[in-house]
Amino acid sequence: MDRTGLLTDRYELTMLDSFVRDGSASRPAVFEAFARRLPEGRRYGMLAGLGRLLTAIEHFTFDADELAWLQAEGVIGEQTARYLAEFRFGGDIDGYREGDLYFPGSPIFTVTGTLGECVVLETLVLSILNHDTAIASAAARMVDAAQGRPIIEMGGRRTHEEAAVATARAAYLAGFATTSNLAAGRRYAVPTAGTAAHAFTLAHDTEADAFRSQVEALGVGTTLLVDTYDIAEGIRTAVEVAGTGLGAIRIDSGDLAEESHKARVLLDELGATGTRIVVTSDLDEFVIAALADAPIDGYGVGTRVATGSGHPTASMVYKLVAIADGAGAPLRPVAKKSKDKGSVGGRKHPFRTYDEQGLLVAEWFTTADAPPPGDGARPVQVPLVRSGEVVHRPTLGEVRDFAAATLAALPAEARSVSAGAAYLTTTLREETPMAPKSSSTKALVVVDVQNDFVEGGSLGVTGGREVARRISEHLAAHATDYALVAASRDWHRAGETNGGHFHEPGQDPDFVSTWPVHCVQGETGSDYAPELTTGAVTHHVVKGMGEPAYSAFEGVTETGERLADLLHAAGVTEVDVTGIATDYCVRATALDAVKAGFTVRLLDGLHAGVAPDSSAAALDELAAAGVEVAR
Amino acid sequence: MDRTGLLTDRYELTMLDSFVRDGSASRPAVFEAFARRLPEGRRYGMLAGLGRLLTAIEHFTFDADELAWLQAEGVIGEQTARYLAEFRFGGDIDGYREGDLYFPGSPIFTVTGTLGECVVLETLVLSILNHDTAIASAAARMVDAAQGRPIIEMGGRRTHEEAAVATARAAYLAGFATTSNLAAGRRYAVPTAGTAAHAFTLAHDTEADAFRSQVEALGVGTTLLVDTYDIAEGIRTAVEVAGTGLGAIRIDSGDLAEESHKARVLLDELGATGTRIVVTSDLDEFVIAALADAPIDGYGVGTRVATGSGHPTASMVYKLVAIADGAGAPLRPVAKKSKDKGSVGGRKHPFRTYDEQGLLVAEWFTTADAPPPGDGARPVQVPLVRSGEVVHRPTLGEVRDFAAATLAALPAEARSVSAGAAYLTTTLREETPMAPKSSSTKALVVVDVQNDFVEGGSLGVTGGREVARRISEHLAAHATDYALVAASRDWHRAGETNGGHFHEPGQDPDFVSTWPVHCVQGETGSDYAPELTTGAVTHHVVKGMGEPAYSAFEGVTETGERLADLLHAAGVTEVDVTGIATDYCVRATALDAVKAGFTVRLLDGLHAGVAPDSSAAALDELAAAGVEVAR
Repeated sequence: MDRTGLLTDRYELTMLDSFVRDGSASRPAVFEAFARRLPEGRRYGMLAGLGRLLTAIEHFTFDADELAWLQAEGVIGEQTARYLAEFRFGGDIDGYREGDLYFPGSPIFTVTGTLGECVVLETLVLSILNHDTAIASAAARMVDAAQGRPIIEMGGRRTHEEAAVATARAAYLAGFATTSNLAAGRRYAVPTAGTAAHAFTLAHDTEADAFRSQVEALGVGTTLLVDTYDIAEGIRTAVEVAGTGLGAIRIDSGDLAEESHKARVLLDELGATGTRIVVTSDLDEFVIAALADAPIDGYGVGTRVATGSGHPTASMVYKLVAIADGAGAPLRPVAKKSKDKGSVGGRKHPFRTYDEQGLLVAEWFTTADAPPPGDGARPVQVPLVRSGEVVHRPTLGEVRDFAAATLAALPAEARSVSAGAAYLTTTLREETPMAPKSSSTKALVVVDVQNDFVEGGSLGVTGGREVARRISEHLAAHATDYALVAASRDWHRAGETNGGHFHEPGQDPDFVSTWPVHCVQGETGSDYAPELTTGAVTHHVVKGMGEPAYSAFEGVTETGERLADLLHAAGVTEVDVTGIATDYCVRATALDAVKAGFTVRLLDGLHAGVAPDSSAAALDELAAAGVEVAR
Repeated sequence: MDRTGLLTDRYELTMLDSFVRDGSASRPAVFEAFARRLPEGRRYGMLAGLGRLLTAIEHFTFDADELAWLQAEGVIGEQTARYLAEFRFGGDIDGYREGDLYFPGSPIFTVTGTLGECVVLETLVLSILNHDTAIASAAARMVDAAQGRPIIEMGGRRTHEEAAVATARAAYLAGFATTSNLAAGRRYAVPTAGTAAHAFTLAHDTEADAFRSQVEALGVGTTLLVDTYDIAEGIRTAVEVAGTGLGAIRIDSGDLAEESHKARVLLDELGATGTRIVVTSDLDEFVIAALADAPIDGYGVGTRVATGSGHPTASMVYKLVAIADGAGAPLRPVAKKSKDKGSVGGRKHPFRTYDEQGLLVAEWFTTADAPPPGDGARPVQVPLVRSGEVVHRPTLGEVRDFAAATLAALPAEARSVSAGAAYLTTTLREETPMAPKSSSTKALVVVDVQNDFVEGGSLGVTGGREVARRISEHLAAHATDYALVAASRDWHRAGETNGGHFHEPGQDPDFVSTWPVHCVQGETGSDYAPELTTGAVTHHVVKGMGEPAYSAFEGVTETGERLADLLHAAGVTEVDVTGIATDYCVRATALDAVKAGFTVRLLDGLHAGVAPDSSAAALDELAAAGVEVAR
């Protein structure tokens, strides 16, 4: 690899020049790369480029000619030229593994070193991670949509000639089978594949001549492009020339669902039952998903993977998060306060929590020096560089296997290609999450104020939106009265009955213990109703993942905690309950709160029930259990 | 530059292998690169990458290791390995100049040589042209929107690290002032610029310390980033530290229009009246256009230029268009017939026509061996390579000047950043455009069936949509009865009265000789009404470019011909007239047709008038002039 020092923005070196002049270049510092958000509609991102980046950092040096040029251009002075002549990154780097998932706020890449050596890496880190991650994030969705059928990456002609090589690498680690790009084959051992262009057929006097020439060169296992003239005729000619042992045909135009069906029938009629059908032409994850039922054996994806399927960059940033006042001094967190770009200071240690089936539930970070993993939480970062030496060098095949495994740990709903919100957001878990926010011993619980439970939802309760508005008003006036404010959500899994909670297909719900499908993870119905202002909510509780769950006390917070534990640890003794529906989840929550030893109050006007009779009965029952109920 | 041979799709070399085996590698051939369409909403594209491409073609070779690897991978056989060991492109290339405009169908890059040497260049040609052209096409629009204020390209961190260098080069030739990318400065002499990052301020104990350090290193002419904490305070500190001679401040967050206004007032108050204001943060051509009235002196554009402002690739293709049966044999045109990807065969010679003010009117091509330029038409292609030697090597500065000049020859409406159709489409001008399509001596003229002249348009005529429908039915039944079918459109210029045809601002139109603004080029109002089916239209006539024009005989076709000449040359003697409005443009067209010596018929039910009285009067007048009018 060539030197990479100049693949850098001018301001990195002018800043370094200032740091060298004023003596701060040697101050210890920590920088982090992260993304504030995922591309619109995406539920997860897949990190790629790490292998290329670590090599590029090793080659981040300057030769004498370059330094003389930088001085002549007025970028750096003599002192900085001497600094850079010796430059080699000597710090530590920790980060997510290549092929791992990331979410908004994930601290993907943490660089610890001197201010000078950290700051100059910014442009290179971002160029490589932003590009390769954009490709892998798009490619992973296509791989998922293809349901095991192989995909050839063939987008090199749609992107910069070197970006093309990186694209092939990133798509392969995300699960593509092969690439058309020969440089990627040679440089990274990505398996290469290809068929033929229309020009190949046109260059011959007849289609049969073209097929004969290709079969002679590549054998009958090759893939013949059959749509230069007429597809049916092309298929007949292909089988005539290659025999029924022909490897595959490729169709690159027309309605691919229709053409593949017709092609399969014709191939079978001709006896070429083993000949595979490969389709190309403007494919992306959406088209691939739509072709799931077509008799297609493989896909070729070009433009859309090379351009990140609408999102050609991952929008990662690289920020100073901690600095020491001098060598040996302690690191102190820093963060800027710009209007729309605020950030959390301090070096972040990310962890993940998984459910019993091994599915990812939450990702969060602490800023403590030596963070306690806690119950079952697993650290996400691994050491990548120590004192300038790369200590993490998986093969591309290992990266690909890791990527597949990490994707498999994501629930199906988080992997859907349909537009959705990020499956999770990585936030700070306070070191003392149990400490009350105020001296108050009161907590507010807001039960299930979700789209599916208000007017217009699949289990809409009349008055639900009005209750949401009133709870928002109550919070605006009284949030500081509470030590904490917990909001719960039903959070059911897609495509299953959630332990008999949803009615079986073909049977009607009984509206007692079986219900219409509602509050499915990642779908609009499970979002908080828009009338509810959640800014003052300190803890978000989800419940019903694969099971019926009425009480908020059955759920867990983002960090896997139970509500009762949280309240006790915060010193709470009184609990105010609000939400939907009075006769079901509000009732169950209030009863559980009593059982857990709290003094419980149901706030008047801040709850709504499904039916008048059952709601009245619930109020009676709650009053009898000791809940303070205004009637 | 390194060898570029492997920056290639596998199928290029497997096809070559077949060609070498079957002896056709030495057959003369012509390939062309072109784009079937522009990105959605774009009115023109700007070609870039040519300089990089010609150098890359010179380096398109293979060394022994690469050839051994290709053989081991089964890509090529022994014979092709020998062929490639000696390979160096030895043919001719003609093409559009770098920085030139292109449109759908423009034959941008024409490669003439042996089939073998032409076919293997495909991937490299497309990678470089598609990437660099996407950048320049987006950048040119931003430059236009900035109205002369300088733009810094700073998107390197949002794209592949080598694509970043090419991005800086392409943006510069399209008119950007500078780049942040140092490698582009060193490699292509693009001027570099930069300010400082928020990390720079955060790394210092106070904002004042950071500014002091930067000013010491870079002088008071530097640009200070003032929004790390509070913008107003940042500006005060900046002027305090640097004095009123401070070069510039940068604002990277918040509402840029509002913040720049406040900053200008504050800077002026502080006496820093010469300090410039530079803004950054998610800028693109649309935001820049919206900020036109803000007191901003310069822009920094990152993500959006590096990703082609929503269109990261130019979707060019590279197609075989002609081949000879053997060395010395004549080239014959070839074209494929795939359903949605048909193309015109034959080597294309593109020309452009300009109006009296030097503005571009039309682009078209012939496929004749030695095309006659015709009246005022200028050839577009220049020789780039002859017998493998690059013969066209403008400096990047010359390319930039050419790009600016070529953009200036585009009418203002074609340069608008708002979404619009391609300003023109490059089509085949038949060598014998005068020859009648059939033995018929009849022609149909469809007058001004445009959105502005039907219901809902700015000069909507009642019954206009119904007439459009009936003309479509008439065409469906009778198109083959006509030697040619001409449709005219009013095609007025934006932002002017078109020779007093539009009412003066502040005065009302008199609806006799002055009219409300209508049928402005490139706007929806000038499109054919959707009810009109134009598939059978053989000639499209436009009229009223800068002047009043009622009769279709005052207009010109795409290739600059007058309707009367066209009809006479086609042997037409009878003209059927239809369209809108009976009392204005239909009347004028029919009268002109009589004057030009044709037997003229106004088709009953296929025209609509503005007012009953004036329409009746027009019919009387036409009948008196000899037009056959059904009453």
